[in-house]
Amino acid sequence: MAKLSFPIIIVNFKTYPESQGKRGLELSKAAERVARENGVCIAVAPQCVDIRLIAEAVDIPVFAQHLDPEAPGAQTGHLTSEAAKEAGATGSLLNHSEMRLRADIIEGAIRRAKGLGLATCVCANTPSMGAAVSAFSPTMVAVEPPELIGSGVSVSKAKPEIVRNSVLSIKKIDAGVRVLCGAGVTSGGDVAVAIKLGSEGILVASGVVKAKDPSAVLNDFAKSIWPKK
Amino acid sequence: MAKLSFPIIIVNFKTYPESQGKRGLELSKAAERVARENGVCIAVAPQCVDIRLIAEAVDIPVFAQHLDPEAPGAQTGHLTSEAAKEAGATGSLLNHSEMRLRADIIEGAIRRAKGLGLATCVCANTPSMGAAVSAFSPTMVAVEPPELIGSGVSVSKAKPEIVRNSVLSIKKIDAGVRVLCGAGVTSGGDVAVAIKLGSEGILVASGVVKAKDPSAVLNDFAKSIWPKK
Amino acid sequence: MAKLSFPIIIVNFKTYPESQGKRGLELSKAAERVARENGVCIAVAPQCVDIRLIAEAVDIPVFAQHLDPEAPGAQTGHLTSEAAKEAGATGSLLNHSEMRLRADIIEGAIRRAKGLGLATCVCANTPSMGAAVSAFSPTMVAVEPPELIGSGVSVSKAKPEIVRNSVLSIKKIDAGVRVLCGAGVTSGGDVAVAIKLGSEGILVASGVVKAKDPSAVLNDFAKSIWPKK
Amino acid sequence: MAKLSFPIIIVNFKTYPESQGKRGLELSKAAERVARENGVCIAVAPQCVDIRLIAEAVDIPVFAQHLDPEAPGAQTGHLTSEAAKEAGATGSLLNHSEMRLRADIIEGAIRRAKGLGLATCVCANTPSMGAAVSAFSPTMVAVEPPELIGSGVSVSKAKPEIVRNSVLSIKKIDAGVRVLCGAGVTSGGDVAVAIKLGSEGILVASGVVKAKDPSAVLNDFAKSIWPKK
Repeated sequence: MAKLSFPIIIVNFKTYPESQGKRGLELSKAAERVARENGVCIAVAPQCVDIRLIAEAVDIPVFAQHLDPEAPGAQTGHLTSEAAKEAGATGSLLNHSEMRLRADIIEGAIRRAKGLGLATCVCANTPSMGAAVSAFSPTMVAVEPPELIGSGVSVSKAKPEIVRNSVLSIKKIDAGVRVLCGAGVTSGGDVAVAIKLGSEGILVASGVVKAKDPSAVLNDFAKSIWPKK
Repeated sequence: MAKLSFPIIIVNFKTYPESQGKRGLELSKAAERVARENGVCIAVAPQCVDIRLIAEAVDIPVFAQHLDPEAPGAQTGHLTSEAAKEAGATGSLLNHSEMRLRADIIEGAIRRAKGLGLATCVCANTPSMGAAVSAFSPTMVAVEPPELIGSGVSVSKAKPEIVRNSVLSIKKIDAGVRVLCGAGVTSGGDVAVAIKLGSEGILVASGVVKAKDPSAVLNDFAKSIWPKK
Repeated sequence: MAKLSFPIIIVNFKTYPESQGKRGLELSKAAERVARENGVCIAVAPQCVDIRLIAEAVDIPVFAQHLDPEAPGAQTGHLTSEAAKEAGATGSLLNHSEMRLRADIIEGAIRRAKGLGLATCVCANTPSMGAAVSAFSPTMVAVEPPELIGSGVSVSKAKPEIVRNSVLSIKKIDAGVRVLCGAGVTSGGDVAVAIKLGSEGILVASGVVKAKDPSAVLNDFAKSIWPKK
Repeated sequence: MAKLSFPIIIVNFKTYPESQGKRGLELSKAAERVARENGVCIAVAPQCVDIRLIAEAVDIPVFAQHLDPEAPGAQTGHLTSEAAKEAGATGSLLNHSEMRLRADIIEGAIRRAKGLGLATCVCANTPSMGAAVSAFSPTMVAVEPPELIGSGVSVSKAKPEIVRNSVLSIKKIDAGVRVLCGAGVTSGGDVAVAIKLGSEGILVASGVVKAKDPSAVLNDFAKSIWPKK
């Protein structure tokens, strides 16, 4: 279970064919190289069936894309924090716009993951949602306006006030929560602006996974993520 | 991807600690031994994160506990048939009483799995539900009255008419669908009665996973599953 | 509680402003007039809050758009069959493409409604779904390809084989189930074709509610619904 | 649309037979009498089909038990704020423990209701959930530990720290949000303690609806709700 540090880049593999199974393993190795070379934390979030494959092969944090709040027992089709941890997961995304959750399930899943030492990155579709989920004290909140996801237009440039307001309102509720932003991030410039606005990392998917040269994109992101002095 | 044959015993690992990760792997190896010794098909259905671990180590069918109907693409937290197949799955349970699904999702998931050559075992809480889901032509339907799940009282002995009616109504709709029964199966006697009533296999969970000696229980099941002449 | 007869026209009011509250009441009165003049059964399905308002004012069947399967008791935000019946409902739509339900909830809601003498019209997005839900013996099944809903292109003309296959497969499973078709029905010609293909009625929404002259459209439908000799 | 004032007593009618249709109307009239005699705001939350019946007959606030966030349009089985308002609703409960909602739906439903001048009372199963939903600025938050609902053991007496912590954390996030408490409230003593702990009202269901003499219970509550000097 590799360690988290900030700033962080989390690459959501979604269910893209380009990041499934063996291809996801190759992408994770590329992410590991870029992370090492740039001294930046890069985490990957593959489909659940691929967590162990990747966690055994690389020394970067591997996230689940979703965790259920239930304790081990008589459930079918769920993914417990215990099983994800044994498979090598460092943490999990929760409440992604493509997997929105009941409010009580978000709270329950954060609590359960935390009890096992797993990190959580809760996605929020609005700044006020970012504030709301911060009341559950997850490790991170990633603010992603759904209309920009996969758009190629980055939230940091198109709606800088969303990033700024999110940072303010989240930190006011729990200063310990790390704020990420996502949606439409495709260039180092997008990343630099996000960091300048107070974000401590980014959540990215198609911008890396669907890129012609994912390593080059990640490298560009990694070089842009340290705040300029 | 190991081959299916009938009669079949499917062991649902649920999210029990006794069948998670390494312990699930040991249980799968035990199932493989019993299957080989008795010439009976035994499949295991571990948590999603454990599918590849087990599928790589044993030569018996490995089932997912759930599959989503979506094609690969921009989804987060879903498990596609493609990813499950690449990880080594032979098929999947669907619509278990602990993971009930929308009717259109059952149909969609069956269609998608079938397109990739994956088997499906759809759970049904009533005989009429068994008939209903047969209209989607899954590989198997497992009829399990939810009130008997985990009860230690087997459906084949407590409610033989449920098994008999299910077989009749399912075969009438699609004679190619294999009928399993489940819920409360704990002994070879339960299995023998189920087969006598027309069932072509059983779906079992705690009766094996929570047993003091799972191998002995599986052995008892396997010896009882061939119809007596 | 007005009586049902076949052929039937069911007008789904959805949550359109044109069919809400007082405007829905006027539309229901218009439907009553057309029904009376043409000797055709026309039912309306308003939003839940409007059921009593309309059922008290007109003598045509009033349907809920959805019913929950639970018995009266400690539930919040649900609509029981008992309360819908007391408010004057004759029956309910279930599993509309805009309100898809878990398979076990479809079965449960049909059973509960039937126990109170309420009719059910279960929507099906495919012919095989039509066959599946027929195993629960609802009063009616309405087959509606979702891609044609609101399209202005009628299922009876664009995909006649869907109507024909649905009638065959539903009647094979339960000859007592009445088969309706829907999606894209806007003219008497669409209705006539639907009836010719074996349908015993139609489910319509925007084709009537959004029409410039809903009475004229309903009149056209009503005149076209009796099978030509 | 009767006006809200604080302190408030909200009576959730759930789907109890004792508060359905005509019986719900009688109960609402009793609540109106007690409200008038004691100068206390009492609101009732009947099943959706009964909103208009009751709102037309009494001059106290009538709440829906749930509202959907969608704008009027092509939805089936939903209840829009517009239709609830036209039927006479003053506001709505949201996210009751028996109707838990996705976080984004809570935010969306509050925003939509507010836009139409409808009040919202969001239920929270924990103090941190109370804090979370306050980030969406509903009119009220009602903190109800689900294990005490219907128990006859009041949250104000059994777990006073839950009420106190909720008031503190909610007011810190949005001082304009009114804090109610609920679960297990059956006597004036429970109400007095709740008010003393900082609550501005109570949410009650079986304690009133299932009482032998609901008027007497409401009267007891109303007399106990004014803070003692």
